[in-house]
Amino acid sequence: MAEDMDSANTAGTRASGASYVEAKLGFRNYWYPALFRHELESGEAKGVRLLGENILLRKVGDRVAAVQDRCLHRGVRFSRKPECYTADTITCWYHGFTYSLLDGKLVDILTEPGSKMIGKMSIRTYPVAEAKGIVFVWVGDREPTRLEDDVPPGFLGEDLAVEGIRDEVKSNWRIGAENGFDTTHIYIHRDSPLIGGNHLMLPIGLVPATKQGIETHAERDPRGVFDSMAENYIPVFEASIRGEKVLESRGARGEKRVAASVSIWMPGVLKVDPFPDPALTQFEWYVPIDVDTHMYWRVLGKRVVSDLEAAIFRDEFHSLWKPLALHGFNDLDVWAREGMQEFYKDDEAWSQEHLNKPDACIVEWRKLASKHHRGLQPVK
Amino acid sequence: MAEDMDSANTAGTRASGASYVEAKLGFRNYWYPALFRHELESGEAKGVRLLGENILLRKVGDRVAAVQDRCLHRGVRFSRKPECYTADTITCWYHGFTYSLLDGKLVDILTEPGSKMIGKMSIRTYPVAEAKGIVFVWVGDREPTRLEDDVPPGFLGEDLAVEGIRDEVKSNWRIGAENGFDTTHIYIHRDSPLIGGNHLMLPIGLVPATKQGIETHAERDPRGVFDSMAENYIPVFEASIRGEKVLESRGARGEKRVAASVSIWMPGVLKVDPFPDPALTQFEWYVPIDVDTHMYWRVLGKRVVSDLEAAIFRDEFHSLWKPLALHGFNDLDVWAREGMQEFYKDDEAWSQEHLNKPDACIVEWRKLASKHHRGLQPVK
Amino acid sequence: MAEDMDSANTAGTRASGASYVEAKLGFRNYWYPALFRHELESGEAKGVRLLGENILLRKVGDRVAAVQDRCLHRGVRFSRKPECYTADTITCWYHGFTYSLLDGKLVDILTEPGSKMIGKMSIRTYPVAEAKGIVFVWVGDREPTRLEDDVPPGFLGEDLAVEGIRDEVKSNWRIGAENGFDTTHIYIHRDSPLIGGNHLMLPIGLVPATKQGIETHAERDPRGVFDSMAENYIPVFEASIRGEKVLESRGARGEKRVAASVSIWMPGVLKVDPFPDPALTQFEWYVPIDVDTHMYWRVLGKRVVSDLEAAIFRDEFHSLWKPLALHGFNDLDVWAREGMQEFYKDDEAWSQEHLNKPDACIVEWRKLASKHHRGLQPVK
Repeated sequence: MAEDMDSANTAGTRASGASYVEAKLGFRNYWYPALFRHELESGEAKGVRLLGENILLRKVGDRVAAVQDRCLHRGVRFSRKPECYTADTITCWYHGFTYSLLDGKLVDILTEPGSKMIGKMSIRTYPVAEAKGIVFVWVGDREPTRLEDDVPPGFLGEDLAVEGIRDEVKSNWRIGAENGFDTTHIYIHRDSPLIGGNHLMLPIGLVPATKQGIETHAERDPRGVFDSMAENYIPVFEASIRGEKVLESRGARGEKRVAASVSIWMPGVLKVDPFPDPALTQFEWYVPIDVDTHMYWRVLGKRVVSDLEAAIFRDEFHSLWKPLALHGFNDLDVWAREGMQEFYKDDEAWSQEHLNKPDACIVEWRKLASKHHRGLQPVK
Repeated sequence: MAEDMDSANTAGTRASGASYVEAKLGFRNYWYPALFRHELESGEAKGVRLLGENILLRKVGDRVAAVQDRCLHRGVRFSRKPECYTADTITCWYHGFTYSLLDGKLVDILTEPGSKMIGKMSIRTYPVAEAKGIVFVWVGDREPTRLEDDVPPGFLGEDLAVEGIRDEVKSNWRIGAENGFDTTHIYIHRDSPLIGGNHLMLPIGLVPATKQGIETHAERDPRGVFDSMAENYIPVFEASIRGEKVLESRGARGEKRVAASVSIWMPGVLKVDPFPDPALTQFEWYVPIDVDTHMYWRVLGKRVVSDLEAAIFRDEFHSLWKPLALHGFNDLDVWAREGMQEFYKDDEAWSQEHLNKPDACIVEWRKLASKHHRGLQPVK
Repeated sequence: MAEDMDSANTAGTRASGASYVEAKLGFRNYWYPALFRHELESGEAKGVRLLGENILLRKVGDRVAAVQDRCLHRGVRFSRKPECYTADTITCWYHGFTYSLLDGKLVDILTEPGSKMIGKMSIRTYPVAEAKGIVFVWVGDREPTRLEDDVPPGFLGEDLAVEGIRDEVKSNWRIGAENGFDTTHIYIHRDSPLIGGNHLMLPIGLVPATKQGIETHAERDPRGVFDSMAENYIPVFEASIRGEKVLESRGARGEKRVAASVSIWMPGVLKVDPFPDPALTQFEWYVPIDVDTHMYWRVLGKRVVSDLEAAIFRDEFHSLWKPLALHGFNDLDVWAREGMQEFYKDDEAWSQEHLNKPDACIVEWRKLASKHHRGLQPVK
């Protein structure tokens, strides 16, 4: 059926597939957001699962440490009942094996003082970076890159205040990423309360303009695909079937123009600029948990010039943007991804789908990810 | 252990197995009931799953149309949120791909008007037939047969009024069919409120008479196996263990004789005549949904001479026969099938079972189905 | 990483693994506790699952009979709806196939009196033994041994009164056995209400003394591993990390000394003597149900000299020891095993774990079980 389709796009997709199709658990040797810093403020250790690896995080002094969440002795997860008796150690609840959170060394066994194993074994440690209230963990074997290599341009800007939420979604991470970068999925949002609530101008669909303005940034990190929405597409405000008008955009008369550009960056993080308001930028991470679940990070950034402005934004985030935009708008994305998972859980889906012209950006993303990743996370 | 058994029957079963044992998802190129016509009256599109295929149905004018319930673009099911903007189309909730329900053609993409894909791609359509308030769908590749080739004799009789229900049962469809056609499973029904409630004469068991009267109709469609119950078996009204009486049929003194004949027809539909009353006939379909579930159709037919009589039967069906017979009697069949599934989910069960003489009818059914089917539905 | 470890123990573990690692469903040709005798007092038949086999038990006169819980005819489990019309038979709810519970013979078919199959077919029977209110079933093909060959020494002592409970635990049986025999898992019990409630002296951990006193009894049945706790280990009442005291045993000042010895016996039954009181002995069976579940038997024995003393112990068991010890103390063992299952469900765990010196007893148990078992239960 391929010959009936927009062949340029489709061929690209098919040809580029190899690595991307295998990347069920994502790509190694990247920084991934693990949790919000405030989740660790109590001092307790917390477990997360990234790319199929169980990882334990805890504040050690001012920094955050991350180690494998599995005792060497009998393989249990520390996070099932975290025991922290000193500032920089984690003790296993089962037999008291105690490890340094800083270098992973076995420093004591509470049930067998003086064991010959002490000091001779280590659990794996993970490099950690913090920015904007988010704790990032390096999942990989190589020397970590700079954090700025793995986040969207602008995210680390000094004047950017950041607030967000994270939720587990029952779909593969690639479904999350593609739904986010998908230009015409705005169709599902046409009745969103955000449109009227924030006076957004939002079309129902988009017709690609003759000359495509999708730019692939593959020369240096961060690597990504940039889609200048405002320039690349002709917005569609009315939908017709066989010439008969059947739908009209509620966002046709909105004054606020948003989503002038949408870009996606390795290892799977979106930037929509501006969104959901001309003064805001939305960032989204789709972090693999297991092959059929991902952690969905919805994060808003706002330029501020003072701590007071940052505090005001925090209030505004919780009272307005979180319910109206992150839930009111993006919850439907969660629903859409779960609907796609049924088809894409089968590897053959990638060769059975039929992409159309507006999917050209997704094709570029697949090509980039296939060609420029730093390593595949193996599936056990 | 085979040598200890009633060898005639058993040998038949074993020899005939090949196709039937493989028919986990049933047989292709047959008409199957999909839903009741009244389920579509609201005009909404509805999804069903037949033989592992997702199918969408909707009324288009006076007829019912059926198409594959999966968008070509990203593989989602339309029925997750059916959108119907015109009388004969289905629009995908994700990107507005819109297909004709009549020929399956992609007629528009709401988010990309003017797409080159429009008119060049199609989703699969399924032939539909309607009879007796039931919508039948042809699942197969060949040219459809006449509906009367795939339903029990008499079902399409002009004067037959039909009422029924359908329910999902957690067993393979073959377990459903065999439980229905099984002559001696009446044992489980011995305490049914239907017996006393309708004064039925119903034995506990049946001893096959010397000369078997099971007829196989394999020369022309519909093909089936016909068991003249009344003539083939000696009814058992008392049960004994080592000569000691342990049970007595509550149906021994009932005046109404039912189930004079039981027959089963390809692709898996039962006729019990008369039942559950001398004036009624029961039809049952066991339609594969997945390998471990089937749709159980319980349908009663009554000869009527006017619309008034049909209306009276409808009332009677809802107030009397549905609770007393379809639930009060047949719910136990559902329970029995779920109990068999544990054993038969393993393919080896078919060679480990030990059928007895009254199972001769089941053996004939297996032989017929193995030899005369129009195609196996492949299991993915 | 093996070279960093206490090599003596570890090497033993690894070398001994073969049979034990394969014994996911336990060992054949042993006596296993199936249920408490009082569970059968109503006269009803009950189903249990041992080593993956479904077994039906029922009292026949003074003894208990056990047969396979699956009808030969269509494979359903009798226990789904047990029908018992005579003192020594089970009748299948589906077609009335009736078997003798004593020899398994098909004695009648209620729905087909006079069937040629009667008397010619049999279901499997299982040897049964009773002791101390517990019904034991022989799972195997060989001639049964004496029950005393398969229970811990002393369990059958005439003056021992026995009370207990049984519960399904979501872990493999080997995890149960190893958790029970594990000397230093007492760490998880350090806050148990039993310690203060019964004035127990209980350390947090144990340092193996230079000369190990673990004895393997492999010459004759019962075969087991005996750990003279009181002599083999130096108790640890305070725990330190890098020399800094972080924990103190609540059981440091208790007057009652318990667990002088702990031993484990084929096919997987523990004896802790004395426990949870100087006057009591605890026995625990870990009986495979499926590969990922086991039946956990917690049983207490007390020497009594009269029926009155036995009755007093029964009261004491229900009012005191069951809540305080079996639940208050051992429920945490259930929790710990479920935490281990995640790791050990993967066969590679057995070569990825890192045992320490106090695990020497577990290593001996694995060696014994690998070398001296009577047969592996195959996994389907």
